[in-house]
Amino acid sequence: MRAAILGGGVIGGGWAARFLLNGWDVAVFDPDPEAERKIGEVLDNSRRALPMLYETRLPAEGQLRFVDSLEEAVTGVDYIQESVPETIDLKRNVYGRIEAANRDAVIGSSTSGFKPSELGEGLETSDRLIVAHPFNPVYLLPLVELVGPSVATDKAAGLLRGLGMYPLTVRAEIDAHIADRLLEAVWREALWLVNDGVATTEEIDAAIRMGFGLRWAQMGLFETYRIAGGEGGMAHFVRQFGPALKWPWTKLMDVPELSDDLVDRIGQQSDAQSGALSIRELERLRDRNLVAILRALKREGSAAGQVIADHERSLPAIAPSGAPMVTIDRVIPSDWTDYNGHMNESRYGQLWSDAADVVMAHVGADEAYVAKGLSYFTVETVTTFLAETHAGEHVQCETRMTEGAGKKLRLFHEMKRVSDGEVLASCAQLLIHVSLETRRSCAPEPDVLARIEALAREHGA
Amino acid sequence: MRAAILGGGVIGGGWAARFLLNGWDVAVFDPDPEAERKIGEVLDNSRRALPMLYETRLPAEGQLRFVDSLEEAVTGVDYIQESVPETIDLKRNVYGRIEAANRDAVIGSSTSGFKPSELGEGLETSDRLIVAHPFNPVYLLPLVELVGPSVATDKAAGLLRGLGMYPLTVRAEIDAHIADRLLEAVWREALWLVNDGVATTEEIDAAIRMGFGLRWAQMGLFETYRIAGGEGGMAHFVRQFGPALKWPWTKLMDVPELSDDLVDRIGQQSDAQSGALSIRELERLRDRNLVAILRALKREGSAAGQVIADHERSLPAIAPSGAPMVTIDRVIPSDWTDYNGHMNESRYGQLWSDAADVVMAHVGADEAYVAKGLSYFTVETVTTFLAETHAGEHVQCETRMTEGAGKKLRLFHEMKRVSDGEVLASCAQLLIHVSLETRRSCAPEPDVLARIEALAREHGA
Repeated sequence: MRAAILGGGVIGGGWAARFLLNGWDVAVFDPDPEAERKIGEVLDNSRRALPMLYETRLPAEGQLRFVDSLEEAVTGVDYIQESVPETIDLKRNVYGRIEAANRDAVIGSSTSGFKPSELGEGLETSDRLIVAHPFNPVYLLPLVELVGPSVATDKAAGLLRGLGMYPLTVRAEIDAHIADRLLEAVWREALWLVNDGVATTEEIDAAIRMGFGLRWAQMGLFETYRIAGGEGGMAHFVRQFGPALKWPWTKLMDVPELSDDLVDRIGQQSDAQSGALSIRELERLRDRNLVAILRALKREGSAAGQVIADHERSLPAIAPSGAPMVTIDRVIPSDWTDYNGHMNESRYGQLWSDAADVVMAHVGADEAYVAKGLSYFTVETVTTFLAETHAGEHVQCETRMTEGAGKKLRLFHEMKRVSDGEVLASCAQLLIHVSLETRRSCAPEPDVLARIEALAREHGA
Repeated sequence: MRAAILGGGVIGGGWAARFLLNGWDVAVFDPDPEAERKIGEVLDNSRRALPMLYETRLPAEGQLRFVDSLEEAVTGVDYIQESVPETIDLKRNVYGRIEAANRDAVIGSSTSGFKPSELGEGLETSDRLIVAHPFNPVYLLPLVELVGPSVATDKAAGLLRGLGMYPLTVRAEIDAHIADRLLEAVWREALWLVNDGVATTEEIDAAIRMGFGLRWAQMGLFETYRIAGGEGGMAHFVRQFGPALKWPWTKLMDVPELSDDLVDRIGQQSDAQSGALSIRELERLRDRNLVAILRALKREGSAAGQVIADHERSLPAIAPSGAPMVTIDRVIPSDWTDYNGHMNESRYGQLWSDAADVVMAHVGADEAYVAKGLSYFTVETVTTFLAETHAGEHVQCETRMTEGAGKKLRLFHEMKRVSDGEVLASCAQLLIHVSLETRRSCAPEPDVLARIEALAREHGA
């Protein structure tokens, strides 16, 4: 599949990363001479973070091309994402030029400021022109708001789900869609708090991330309040909560004047709060935290973690073949490492066990076989640690069956760094076939044994 | 230490749990005959969730008493937390009655609706009366906003930090303090979105938890925007972002009428979204996710995770003694379990290794010893799995040194469930003393060997 990315800033770069890392070829057009560098930086970050979310490999990365014209970028592609500056004339000019070069791809706009009807009014592209509003970092946050003609939003939703995103189709077009309405409300209130000297930027951030931000990462607003309302139900809660809205709590009835004084104060407070880290360092900190939170939610099967789990299930399973056969193909996630940054000893054991599971499934000693009361038990593993393994490294495990006869099975696993083929660790594993009823060793079923003997011969040769 | 909890609803119960699980004795006064049941339910949840945040035990749980009068509750306590209904006369009456029964404890109010000057005006308790506004679930979320006389907020901040909380002292008293100002702004905007049929409660929650909620759980508002602003700096970003505030994006200039129709619609949408789970199930889901997110952030050393790590360091370290000696005392966290809810095999290895580290430190083969180029290496472990181990179980590891002579050291670990003493797993571990330079076995230093021989004698006897 091929995508065109029009506009190569932080958002365009994030889109490019989402597509590329999910195996799409991407053509980027941006007249900015810095576009290639900027997108390269976003890609760097995304390659470090996104693959860590999965226990398997993503598709092989697609091809990235920077092209010299909009027309070249969009010709023949399956999807077009526009992230040019928020100027209506510029955007409408882009859509007009697309018309002649590509007659059917859905065009998504990253705009937060315009509605689809404003973007496409009177243009021939209007029936396939939608808002597809993502959230930074685009390569990690699942949410993308879709607004526009339903044929086009449905098509886009399917494509974007394939990138591991969570398309939220908005029922009616309104300024700022949904999420930015909420963000805007908070932003305005926060400006008043700084303006009035009630809190600094750091204190406001603390009020969010030490408190309700932790709730919102998983449940949002209404489900959280539903809990607060208790068994009385949500309608009861709203009736109780309602009167508070009439209290003179807020200055939101107005917008604070962005005087030089206020702007400078915010700048200085933010420097005091975060200035010790560069933007690049902050980005990596953010991404590490997002990976950690998303993996935690994935383990719980909740919220955004569910989106990732679903996406992972849709990725092609490893089909082991050859001698040796590849049984594991993945990136080492940050939660597999110790405080010193090396892969934790216990995770090697997990890796060999995962690799053996792949072999077992391959020879037919799978879940159904276990359900029949038969299985292989590991009775010995000897691991050799050859080099340090770090978070973010792409590794493959190559497995050979070195013995497979009767009740006995021996596997030899090598975990290699994919970039240079270096063997990082190996494991000799002895397994014995057992009856789960008697808990004693016994002979495997004939068809399983036949496959094992064939594999052992192949790997022995 | 002793605390009085006045008002025993969800918030009062959360406070009671924070204090009790950190070793404080707690006296609760609430005339509601249901108070004991309600607090019991909150305590249930908290005992399930809070200990999972730590890799060591919390202090022994304090004593909980339900008493028949306010005066009995506050007599002799070190801290008083008031969480009675949001009625100014009721609250002021409570503070007046405290005066005679307790003359020096700081009085914290959980109020979100009143300022300290309103609460304490003209009362003798006003110099020790503060707002201490927590966030639900109080036993998991670190944030507590403190407002009031600085002598009292300073004292409260110290106490509350000892409970693993994050006290945020607000610089000026304003209605709704800080966080609820932001929450209120979002709530109002969300009501408009539902009112206008733009989004359902479920869609609004998705817009939060699939997107910016994930950012806010770790960085908050300003640091996130600082990144969006790039190297231009925060002041530059505000100047650019500013004009958007003038756009006609929001209906916030008014408060939506809470008509029966709107209230019912919210109730029905919320039922459709979350009605399949009871409030109790939702609470547990929320708590599991919060534990997962908080542990993920703790591993990264970031945001609320840093608060937990700091608190953990302040807890008393395990001082092993006796035969056998207790080397591990902790709760099994949910991220140590497989999809089937049992403790993952690799975590047993981690537990034995942690237990051996405690023995090593005890005999002087500690980090300084390793820095000298000497260490014990594990050459064999034989684990026996005796019963399933589940998340949330409080376990202790008892370790015996079964051999300790020359280069050789044998340990025998038993992991027991604390509630009934059942042995869940055991491990025989053989370690050999090595030189980290030659990578060969060698004799330990005499003082370490002497301690080992003494311990082996004691444990053998």
